[in-house]
Order: sequence, then structure tokens, then C-alpha cells
Amino acid sequence: MMIVLNVNASPQETADVVARVEGLGLAAHVSRGSERTVIGVVGDGRAVDREAFRLLPGVDRIVPITRPFKLASREFHPHDTVFPLDGVSVGGRGLIIIAGPCAVESRSLLLETACAVREAGAHALRGGAFKPRTSPYTFQGLGEEGLELLAEARQLTGLPIVTEVMDGEQVPAVARVADVLQVGARNMQNYALLHAVGASQHPVLLKRGMSATVEELLMSAEYILSHGNQRVVLCERGIRTFETSTRNTTDINAIPVLKAQTHLPVLLDPSHSTGNWEFVAAIALAGVAVGVDGLMIEVHPNPAAALSDGLQSLKPERFAEMVTRIRAVAEAVGRGLAPLPNAQKGGARG
Amino acid sequence: MMIVLNVNASPQETADVVARVEGLGLAAHVSRGSERTVIGVVGDGRAVDREAFRLLPGVDRIVPITRPFKLASREFHPHDTVFPLDGVSVGGRGLIIIAGPCAVESRSLLLETACAVREAGAHALRGGAFKPRTSPYTFQGLGEEGLELLAEARQLTGLPIVTEVMDGEQVPAVARVADVLQVGARNMQNYALLHAVGASQHPVLLKRGMSATVEELLMSAEYILSHGNQRVVLCERGIRTFETSTRNTTDINAIPVLKAQTHLPVLLDPSHSTGNWEFVAAIALAGVAVGVDGLMIEVHPNPAAALSDGLQSLKPERFAEMVTRIRAVAEAVGRGLAPLPNAQKGGARG
Amino acid sequence: MMIVLNVNASPQETADVVARVEGLGLAAHVSRGSERTVIGVVGDGRAVDREAFRLLPGVDRIVPITRPFKLASREFHPHDTVFPLDGVSVGGRGLIIIAGPCAVESRSLLLETACAVREAGAHALRGGAFKPRTSPYTFQGLGEEGLELLAEARQLTGLPIVTEVMDGEQVPAVARVADVLQVGARNMQNYALLHAVGASQHPVLLKRGMSATVEELLMSAEYILSHGNQRVVLCERGIRTFETSTRNTTDINAIPVLKAQTHLPVLLDPSHSTGNWEFVAAIALAGVAVGVDGLMIEVHPNPAAALSDGLQSLKPERFAEMVTRIRAVAEAVGRGLAPLPNAQKGGARG
Amino acid sequence: MMIVLNVNASPQETADVVARVEGLGLAAHVSRGSERTVIGVVGDGRAVDREAFRLLPGVDRIVPITRPFKLASREFHPHDTVFPLDGVSVGGRGLIIIAGPCAVESRSLLLETACAVREAGAHALRGGAFKPRTSPYTFQGLGEEGLELLAEARQLTGLPIVTEVMDGEQVPAVARVADVLQVGARNMQNYALLHAVGASQHPVLLKRGMSATVEELLMSAEYILSHGNQRVVLCERGIRTFETSTRNTTDINAIPVLKAQTHLPVLLDPSHSTGNWEFVAAIALAGVAVGVDGLMIEVHPNPAAALSDGLQSLKPERFAEMVTRIRAVAEAVGRGLAPLPNAQKGGARG
Repeated sequence: MMIVLNVNASPQETADVVARVEGLGLAAHVSRGSERTVIGVVGDGRAVDREAFRLLPGVDRIVPITRPFKLASREFHPHDTVFPLDGVSVGGRGLIIIAGPCAVESRSLLLETACAVREAGAHALRGGAFKPRTSPYTFQGLGEEGLELLAEARQLTGLPIVTEVMDGEQVPAVARVADVLQVGARNMQNYALLHAVGASQHPVLLKRGMSATVEELLMSAEYILSHGNQRVVLCERGIRTFETSTRNTTDINAIPVLKAQTHLPVLLDPSHSTGNWEFVAAIALAGVAVGVDGLMIEVHPNPAAALSDGLQSLKPERFAEMVTRIRAVAEAVGRGLAPLPNAQKGGARG
Repeated sequence: MMIVLNVNASPQETADVVARVEGLGLAAHVSRGSERTVIGVVGDGRAVDREAFRLLPGVDRIVPITRPFKLASREFHPHDTVFPLDGVSVGGRGLIIIAGPCAVESRSLLLETACAVREAGAHALRGGAFKPRTSPYTFQGLGEEGLELLAEARQLTGLPIVTEVMDGEQVPAVARVADVLQVGARNMQNYALLHAVGASQHPVLLKRGMSATVEELLMSAEYILSHGNQRVVLCERGIRTFETSTRNTTDINAIPVLKAQTHLPVLLDPSHSTGNWEFVAAIALAGVAVGVDGLMIEVHPNPAAALSDGLQSLKPERFAEMVTRIRAVAEAVGRGLAPLPNAQKGGARG
Repeated sequence: MMIVLNVNASPQETADVVARVEGLGLAAHVSRGSERTVIGVVGDGRAVDREAFRLLPGVDRIVPITRPFKLASREFHPHDTVFPLDGVSVGGRGLIIIAGPCAVESRSLLLETACAVREAGAHALRGGAFKPRTSPYTFQGLGEEGLELLAEARQLTGLPIVTEVMDGEQVPAVARVADVLQVGARNMQNYALLHAVGASQHPVLLKRGMSATVEELLMSAEYILSHGNQRVVLCERGIRTFETSTRNTTDINAIPVLKAQTHLPVLLDPSHSTGNWEFVAAIALAGVAVGVDGLMIEVHPNPAAALSDGLQSLKPERFAEMVTRIRAVAEAVGRGLAPLPNAQKGGARG
Repeated sequence: MMIVLNVNASPQETADVVARVEGLGLAAHVSRGSERTVIGVVGDGRAVDREAFRLLPGVDRIVPITRPFKLASREFHPHDTVFPLDGVSVGGRGLIIIAGPCAVESRSLLLETACAVREAGAHALRGGAFKPRTSPYTFQGLGEEGLELLAEARQLTGLPIVTEVMDGEQVPAVARVADVLQVGARNMQNYALLHAVGASQHPVLLKRGMSATVEELLMSAEYILSHGNQRVVLCERGIRTFETSTRNTTDINAIPVLKAQTHLPVLLDPSHSTGNWEFVAAIALAGVAVGVDGLMIEVHPNPAAALSDGLQSLKPERFAEMVTRIRAVAEAVGRGLAPLPNAQKGGARG
């Protein structure tokens, strides 16, 4: 970190700051500018409280130099993280598509949707058993029963399951069924939950909070990685801005920024990032063109009857058509869709 | 809700929307404008999924009319919620001041701070035993040990304790010590936690999420209230905007907006809403002038050595001076500080 | 518009609101809900001040139904606006590329860049003679001299010129040289300027303000269109949000939203919307995939020596490579680049 | 500025950056950290393009150290700027109140309002003759005729006039009538206008743009100050955020931040910063408590009939009552209202 002194900082104040730095076992490099003096602190300052220095007499502000994340950083881990998910490669040259209903609503609807998305080429099935809802008066998910339906859908289609876990206590139950534990946007900084999914050693899909910076997303990933759990996938799902013509603002810039800063796979969820099915396909294609490693899409056979997020769900036939367009754009940028495992091509995996 | 049709919606489309409304047991009022037709839906639509109507052919958009919260609403509960906290009236004409360190760091520091804030006139002691931190590499709180120190501080000073609970599982342990359970900004939409603190029947201090709207804050309160737990206090703590000259942007407008929309007491936390001790007193006074029911202030005997949030912590002497100024402004707007209970005036309660 | 009454509005208050509506020559439809009464106002209310109704006793809020723009609206003008620019079709199936330096810095640099972008396939040359700069201490543009250099570049390459006009008084001088008058983001609501470029009957490229909503952008276009000037092109250039890892946040959602709401051509400026050359190509491709009608790109032969916006400028060779990738993605989504006029293919137009 | 190198920057890259710095006549201090090297640049870098360094091989990012404004900075001009306005001291211990209608609508309304606000204790009269309106279909102001009415109101009441100028060309005409030229939020970065009002040597009230940072506001002030025009007053009027329960979000933090960073007087406009008369008085009091040097308030005798901004306008009697409360809070924080000049106390100034 660099400690920027006030224009009028005295020599004594400067000396006191240096002494404080050295007292922590770090080195101080003093650089006198035309207007201000700047003190560079040398050593790993990740565990040092920067604010404390800000309070010393004569200090104007603190400028962090070291990025606060390390395990998630591409600077220290230059190669892409790639891992297999039920025979499908996540984070590699081929894109993966995770699709399914927002919520598990009923057995018939889930199985119908699961078959349809598999038919259309999806690599995994999404569906919420536990649903975070803004209002206590709306459908909150089927809970345990929903998990059992997901297990049945897995059995039927061979598709790995991605489903949300909302609380540390739920992790064991959800992990029995889920191939990937999803941490939702509202829980991106629920640290008890981050520790629990990290410790589970299960693959984790971590969604960006609606007002989280890219750096904060990577810091939350760092919590999971700090448990030695390397199988973490990040997901951009739109941020909150002043614009209200869509539910959220897709932060499309975040995709190449994340790809530059981290080795972890990066997905886009255009269903949430737009909140409107009319724009989902266009934004999905934008994501493919910009370099995502996969997409997460809400699909529902009858969106107007959906118990949640109907407005942003695609009908299966539109989803299938979109997959064709995704493949075309992926190829135009030198990538493609991840190959499906043989078992899945031929029928249900066991 | 009002259903606004497209400029070119056909008579059949209009009839279909009306049929759908009536099929839900609600009434439809059709109003034909010069450009568009609007269909008013009559009946309690809080549990109806508005988005589903948006998907019907001929529909342009949906306009909610009923507010989504009811238990928290002043329209349905016009009188202010006022409740006693260890002899101090919360939500009444007198303001309350909750003060203490960001985190419980050590026995001596906590007790020193507790005595100092009590001396200066605080009504309750704050201090975090479980700390949500952006980085896994920084101090995470003393946990259970911190709770015991809080209990000791309560014993010593008679001050009721306000402390954060981060996870549903922690509620019983925290509730044994805390007089008020704090739900932090990052957990405002952690619904498992909201249910747990609601069910506890303990007083709850609910902080606004850093990108939560006023309406979303009230919806989160609604989760707690739906358990029959009426003792909920709201707390503005700054929102995230494009401005970076302070850590957060104090949404001072939110105070009178909340006071108009809800009967629940509303506090301001100027320590977090500014992130800088130099501005805490000024913003605290602004809060008093605008009509808050109380303040939550971080105080630390040696901010430069604090393990978290040192930059935004006041030294005890500055805090005491600020209380004097708060009293003056409170009186200028026709209020004052809440009277301290007799026991507390004379010595330790309990 | 719909006038939503308070829960407790009296019959007299309701009658007074109705009388007020009818007094303006509009019709009122009263719809009584289970909690509230809503009054629909029938007639063209674009010139009515909605806020005035908000102030009547018993009124809770006003909900606009009619969109405030009409000339820019696709609802009233369903067909795409397409117009020729020096033989190139703007707004049609083929995308256009406008490229060049941020600012006109010198004769040699401008001519070198102009030839390079033409060679790479650009349809028009951009370059600022008048530069809006945050700081009065940085380069402010060459002014009139810059305009003359642009005229020379046009002569040499045959490329039409797109350049910014910052003030109503400058319009005649800039219009003598420019084929398209650019209104910059900071001036999107400079109404004196909007009137001046509208009255000029010159094609206008209108950039979205950094905190302007899509609706406000269309309202600013409406100012220009109200002068009978139909040749207006909109340009998304990034909005201001809390995220700081890029200079602005590309609002990629705004592209399909604009295409749905308006018949005007929509461009994307990925140079400004990212502020970093490393991300320009990726975001340009995202724009093509999502459906833009063209791109605006900053190109500089020596970005590290540029007098402004060097960080976001591409070198000519990278730009040429990007054009190839743009063509591939445009074709993958069923479009392509706009054909160049014959003259331009063969040599300078004249 | 500090130049932060990549983790893997080579010695040659480091040397090249140093050479570049020295080539500009500046000194370079190299500080090698445990992970990265940082190069401090010594000398006045305000005119140096920081981005250019960002593009050199091996450079990760640039950290500005020197603030980009100087004339507006309190560091270089520690004493408050105080200047007289028609016998009233602006920027001193006493607060000033500028009040009047949003727009000049008619002679009778303006004169009635002017007398009312003077009676209630206002120090100056506001009123727009030229109005920036989002929609071309709404009232755009009376223009020149409005200026003449303002002159008459000045004659009648002796109150100095604050009115908006929207375009450089209008400056001479507006300056003939206005005592203070107002630059509106939408024009905060209209540099042609900033130069024009700077050159006029007239007092200027500069409103913060709705998405401008505090630093950008000070940079716009710097444009005016660079003409030797010292009489500049800043005005916070709310910023644009995700929150929609009020028209804008009052950035109350910006007041003490500005007072710390600049010597210029700082006002608050609670009418625009809330957009709702119900909250104007509360936010005005907050502004007084936090330390503003004055307030700007919209007053209208019949808000429900106002041609613009009726919703946020106070009736004269509410305004008068608010002035009483403002005085009480101002005294509680050790200030007061600025004394009125003798002439004004007794009757019209001439």
C-alpha cells in the first residue's frame, strides 16, 4: 500500500508513520513529491488494516497496491481452471449451458422441462427447491420435496443438477442431490454460507451480488477457495443501476474483466440480468461473443403460469432455437459448445 | 394492479386478459384511453404473480397499485410503534443512542468503551462478536468469547446489548446475551435468517442493504413481522452509488420517506453511512434534524489500533461532545434524548 | 395517466379529482379497488403536468401510461429509419463502422489514421476538433483548425466525417465540414444545442448521457425530431454505476430495449463504454451479437502518445483485425457490414 | 502520480517507464515491494496524461496523488471564500436563503411570490426564465419576457436575482438582470457555458450534475475560477441512484466533504434533491445541521397549478414556517441566518 501524506505534513508526522510501518515488520520507502510525500509500504499487507494508517496525523489517504485476493487471482494462477462435471468440461474451450425452471414447481413440470432442455442441448439442469423471494407472501419453493424431484430428473435425463442453497444448515441435504451448489446473488456476502459450501468440497456456482463490485465477487470466491475447494464458477447476473427499463443492468464489461483477473470459469445469466424473456436471447449471444464460459437460462413450458420469474423464462422451443444461434456465434468467435458425454448422447446416465 | 395493454391490442386480447383476471376470483375494470386500454384488477393481489399477466398477448406492462407490504405499513397501522428496551423507550419522542466498538476485540477495550459511552449518555451498547468481513484474511470477530464479554459489559454498565447475528443457527446463542439482534446490511435478504430472528420474538435491528430500496427494506421487515414479532427497528446505513468520496452515500431522504410509510422506529448509522469519523458528527446531526428515532455510532478508545472500521470510529471524548450537540439539535426540532432509566442513572442494573 | 388515491381518500376528494380532470377537457374513469380507488385519465396527457394532480387532496401517486415520446416511438413508426450517408446505408441490415482518433491532434496523425481506418473497412471517420474535457488543464482540441484538417481528411479518403459540436453557436461552422453532427454525452440534455442541431437538418449522432435513462435519451431525440430532422442516430456509450473496474458500464441491455422502443438506428461506442482498449474488441463483438446497427471506435497510431483517451484507443492493426472478427459475428447473427460505395472502394470520392 | 507495475514486470520495462517519466522533465522514485514495483512521479502532473503511462509495457495501473483541481482547493486556499451579494454576506457564518418559483410563469405570480419570500426572510429571489425540460412538449419558460419580470421583482422587493442561463449566447442578456448566474445540473459539464460565465465576472451558482462526483463538480468550478472569477457558489441538488422513492437522492455526505475540500460556499437545494414538498423542510433542516452555507427553495403560491415542479414547491406559509425552524437549527449548531441589509429590512432597495 502507499500512504499519501497531507500537503502540510510535518517531518515528525512523516517519521511517526514510518515508525509505525516498521513496527509491523514491514519496510517503508519515502518518496517526496513536489506537493506531497508518499510512503510506500513493502511486504504482504493483506492482513494489515489499512484504515488504521489513515488515522495517523499527517495522513491524507491510503492507496492499496496489492489486490486483496490471491487464490482467485490470475496473476498467481495464470492457467484457466477447468474441471469435469459429470463428463462435461467446465471452463474449457467449449461453452456449457445450464437450463431449467426458476423454481421446481411440480413433478410433471420439472420432468417435462428437464427433457426439453436436454433435447435442446443443455449440459445441466437448474431449478430452485429453496427460493429467496422479496415478499413473504409469494411462493417460497418446495423445499425438501423439490430436492427429491430434482434427483428424479437427474435419474431420468442424466443431466447434472445445479440448485441453490440458502443457508449453511441446508448444505448437507442439498449436496446429496446437487452436482453444483448455487449461492445466490442475495447471499454473495453471507459468509457463514460461503464457509459451508467451501468446506463441502462440492462444486459451487457463485452469483454476483446485485451491487457487488468485481473485486468483492472475487473476495467471496476467495472465502470458498480458502477451504481448498477449487471448483468455483462465477456468474454475472446483472447489477442494480439507475436504469429501470430492464430488471437489472447486464454488466457485460465484467466478463472480460473477470477473465483477465481470475482463472475461474465465468458464466452469464441473461434471464436475471434482463428480467425479460424478449431480451434473453440477444444478451445470451452478447455473452457468447464477449467470451463467457457458459450460460444459465431459465426455461419454462408455460411461463404465464410460472410461480416465479415467468416473465424472464423462455419456452422450450425458443430455448432450442437460441441454442442454435449460440452455437453459431460461439463458432464465429473460435469456440463452440462443450461436447456432451457419450452416455448423455445415447440416454440416461446412471 | 393495473394492466396496461399495447397500443394495438385487439378486442380478443382484451377479453382474454379480463377472463384471466376473473378466473383468479378478482374483478376487472376496463378503461379505454385515447391510445391504450388499461384494465384495473380489484382484490388483494399481494399473492398474485404480476409477471404472469405481463406475458399475456396484448399486454404492455403491469403497474402495481397495492404496496407489497402490509404489516409494516403506516397506512394500515397509523400509530408509531413504541416499545421499551430495558427501561428505555424506543420509537418515542426521545431519541436513543446506541454506541460502542465495531467489533468486540478484547475484554479491557470493550469494558472501557462501554463505560465511556454510558458516561456520555448512550442508551445501549453495540459491539460485534461475529463480524462479516469482505476479506477472509482479516479479523472475523471473537465469536462465542465475544458474546461472553458483551454479557459482562452488560452486567457492569447496565446497558442493553445490540449485536449482530449472521446465521440462523447462531440465533439462540446470540439471543441469550443480546437485548437486540442485529441483522446486518449484507444479510438484509438472507431469508433463513429473517425467519429465525422473527421466530425468536427478540427485538430486531434490521439494517438496510447497501443496494436495497426502501420498499425492499420494508419487505424484509415484513418477513420478521409475519412471525408476530412486532419489535423491529429499521436502520439506514448508507447506500452504494457512483460517488466514492465517502464509503457509502447516506440516503438522508430515506428517513422521512420511511417515517411516512411505516410505523416502525427508524435509526441512522452515520459511522457506516460515511465511513469516515471526520463526517460522523455532521451526518448524525443531519439525521437528528431530519427526524430519526435514534443513532448508532461506532466508538473506539484508540481508532488507529482498531481491528476493524477504525477509520469511522469516534474517540470517546469526541463522542461525548457529539452527544451534547445532538441534544441541542434534537431540542431545536422539538424532540430530545430518551430519558435513561433510574437504575442506569445511579449505577449498574441487574 | 392513472391517479392512485390514498387508502383513506374521501368521496369528496375523489369527486374533486374527477372535476379537475374533466376541467382540462379529459375524461375520468373511476375504478374502485379493494383498498384504493384509481382514476384513469383518458386523452392525450403529454402536455399535462402530472405532478399537479399529485398535489390534490387524497392523491397518493400518479402512474404515467402514455410514453412521453411519440416521434421517436416505434409504436407510432413501426418501420426502421434508414438513410444514406455518402452512399452508405445507415440503419439497414448492414452495420456501419465509424472510426478515428478521439481528438484531431495534428495533420499527419489525422491523415494517417484516416487512411488506416478506411483501409480496414471503416465507413466514416470520427475525430474531435472541439473536445469536452473534465479538466481545464488538459488539451481542449484544435478548434477551427481541427475542422479544416477533417475537411482535408474527407477530401483524401472520401470518408464522411462525424465530429462533435459543443455549443449552438458552433453548429454552422461544424456543419460546413461534418457529415454528421455529434452531440456528446455531457450535452445530451443541453437543450439549446439540441434545438440548434435539429434546426440544422444535418444528420445527428446523439450519445446517451452517462446517467440518462433510455427514456430520457429518446426524449432528447424527440427535441431534434421535433424540428422535422429525421436523420438521428442514437449511441450507447456506457453509463455510470458503482463499478469502477471499467471507466463506464456498457449498458448492453439498452441496445435491444432501444431497438424495441424506437425506429432510429442504434450504435455502440465500446471505446468509451469500457475506457480500456483491452476490452474494446470483446465489447464490440457483444454489441454486434446483440443487434447494434453500427459501432464507433477510437483508433490511434500511437495510443501512448495520444493527447486524450489513449488508454481506450486501438492501434490500426488491432482495429483491422477487429473488423474481421466483427464481420464474422455479424454474419453469424444474419447480418453483415454495410457495403461501401463504389467510389470509396476504388479511391477518393469527391 | 504513482505508476504501479505488473507482478511480472521486467527490469527493462521498469527502466523504460523511468526513462519516459524523466523525459517529461519529472523525477521518478522507484520503490520495490514484495509483489510489485511502484514508481512515484515527482513534479506537477496536472497537465500530464496519466493514461499514456498506463499503456507502457509492464504497467498495471496509475494512481493519482495530486488532486486535479487547485484554484478550488482548500489545501491551497485555506480560508473560506466570502463575498457580498447586494449587502448580504455569502459564505460567512450566517446562512442565506434563496427562494422563489421554479419558473417565472406570470407577472402577478412572480411578484406575489417575491413579496412572500421576502416577507418570510429570504435573502434572494430565484425563478427561471429559461427552463431546461426533459420533454419538448412541456412549458419551456418565458425567456426574455421572464427576465424583464425578474427585473421588476428586483425593483419591487430589493431582492437580488438568481436565475439560470442555459447557453453561452444568453449570458449577456441574463447578466443584465441577474445578480447570480445559475448553471443548472444538466449543464455542469457544458464547457462553453462554463467559460462564458467565468468570463462574465458575475457571481455564479453552479449546481452539481445528477451523476457528477464531488471531484467533477470541483473541476467544473475550476473552469470558472480559471477566468479569475472568484465568486462561485456550489449547490448540491441530489444525485441519481437506484432508489426511486424520491426524485433524487440528497447526497448529504457531499456537504461536509465539499466543506473539507474547498473554500467555496456550499448550498443545498432540497426541492430538487427530494422532488417532493413533503420532505423539503426535513431535508433543509438536515442541510443546516450538517453545515451548509445556504439553501435554495422552490416556493409557489399554488403548487397544484404550477407549470413546472409543482410537486416539490412549498406554499408561502409553509416556507415561512420552515424559515423559523431553519433559524432554530442554525442556532443550535452555532450559526444563524445572514443579516438582511438595512434597506431590505425597511423597504425596497433601489
